[in-house]
Amino acid sequence: MQKISLKEIESMDKRFRTDLINSLWGVRPAVLVATENSSGQSNLAIFNSVIHIGAHPPLVGLIFRPDSVDRHTLTNILDQRFYSLNFFTKDLINKAHHTSARYPKDISEFDAVGLTIDRREDFNAPFVKESPLVIDVCFREKIDIQVNGTHMVIGELQQLYIKENSISAGGWINHDFLGTIGAGGLDSYYSYSLEKRMEYAKPDLAPREKL
Amino acid sequence: MQKISLKEIESMDKRFRTDLINSLWGVRPAVLVATENSSGQSNLAIFNSVIHIGAHPPLVGLIFRPDSVDRHTLTNILDQRFYSLNFFTKDLINKAHHTSARYPKDISEFDAVGLTIDRREDFNAPFVKESPLVIDVCFREKIDIQVNGTHMVIGELQQLYIKENSISAGGWINHDFLGTIGAGGLDSYYSYSLEKRMEYAKPDLAPREKL
Repeated sequence: MQKISLKEIESMDKRFRTDLINSLWGVRPAVLVATENSSGQSNLAIFNSVIHIGAHPPLVGLIFRPDSVDRHTLTNILDQRFYSLNFFTKDLINKAHHTSARYPKDISEFDAVGLTIDRREDFNAPFVKESPLVIDVCFREKIDIQVNGTHMVIGELQQLYIKENSISAGGWINHDFLGTIGAGGLDSYYSYSLEKRMEYAKPDLAPREKL
Repeated sequence: MQKISLKEIESMDKRFRTDLINSLWGVRPAVLVATENSSGQSNLAIFNSVIHIGAHPPLVGLIFRPDSVDRHTLTNILDQRFYSLNFFTKDLINKAHHTSARYPKDISEFDAVGLTIDRREDFNAPFVKESPLVIDVCFREKIDIQVNGTHMVIGELQQLYIKENSISAGGWINHDFLGTIGAGGLDSYYSYSLEKRMEYAKPDLAPREKL
């Protein structure tokens, strides 16, 4: 095993350190967050900081850096309270990644990267028409993280839209079948292969695979 | 697309709802969190709520439910301040999943599931000897999430141990090569296939794949 200490990390070239630490924590779900401002100007930004906060009520967190390109997204969420999380598939990686370019505020990333914007009558945020899984979310809580000045925004699911026949009889979603993509670090994209499902673990039973 | 509203979700059978919402947010990194209490009793618990909080300093978050089986882990972290995050590979899925069984407090999950405990002279938490990536973390901040009573614990990387030759020339870690596993929901485990890496996105350039 190769050991790397915090001291060594702190003395690394900035770019090397950023790539190392951003890819360190594994592969995380990649989503496009769609918002709009009070003038109806839409915004679309890629995030890999989606975090499950609770199932009942269904809550989801997103992390925002204080000085990042996603400032339009944060401003829009706090102003408008509604946003959508749009998962994407392998064929959309290039477009999804390109939403991270620093476009001026009056340019919609939907147009710039070539994804189709759509809106629903009953929800005040746009969504990505090509997405196989769209989750409409309403803002609930903003938490300021003291230790480094980042923010966590927590929202509650309002409704979800998923490709037909993607939910199993028991409620579970197979992301290998659905084809959603994960991000490792700032620039790498992975697909998933389901290895196995396990039965609920009990101390007096050996591990049992769900068949 | 199939639409499911919050109202429909709230009226679902509890088990169906739990499986749906837990698998909804995609595939997340799976890690074993190793701790010990003041008597030196070790604990090992599986988590899929690892979240990158920042690269400089390198900070990582974990979500804890108020009433969950991971209470030993939270107590140990708050008491001892040190813990390790142990990624695992395909061959260890059964053992890793089985740490979620509700063992009594005086049983170490290392022994119960058959993973090898090891300790380092310079760090006050155990680790999993079979892991290809171990990150030693020191507690920094506990955040209470108002909206549902969960907690986020943030820690700072102290050192990391990774399988030899797993870091690219630029600092990036390929999790397909390293073989780490992701969890979708409470019971399903996925491996990763790297699809592509992308160059830094610029408004005036088309998306470019990193070759």
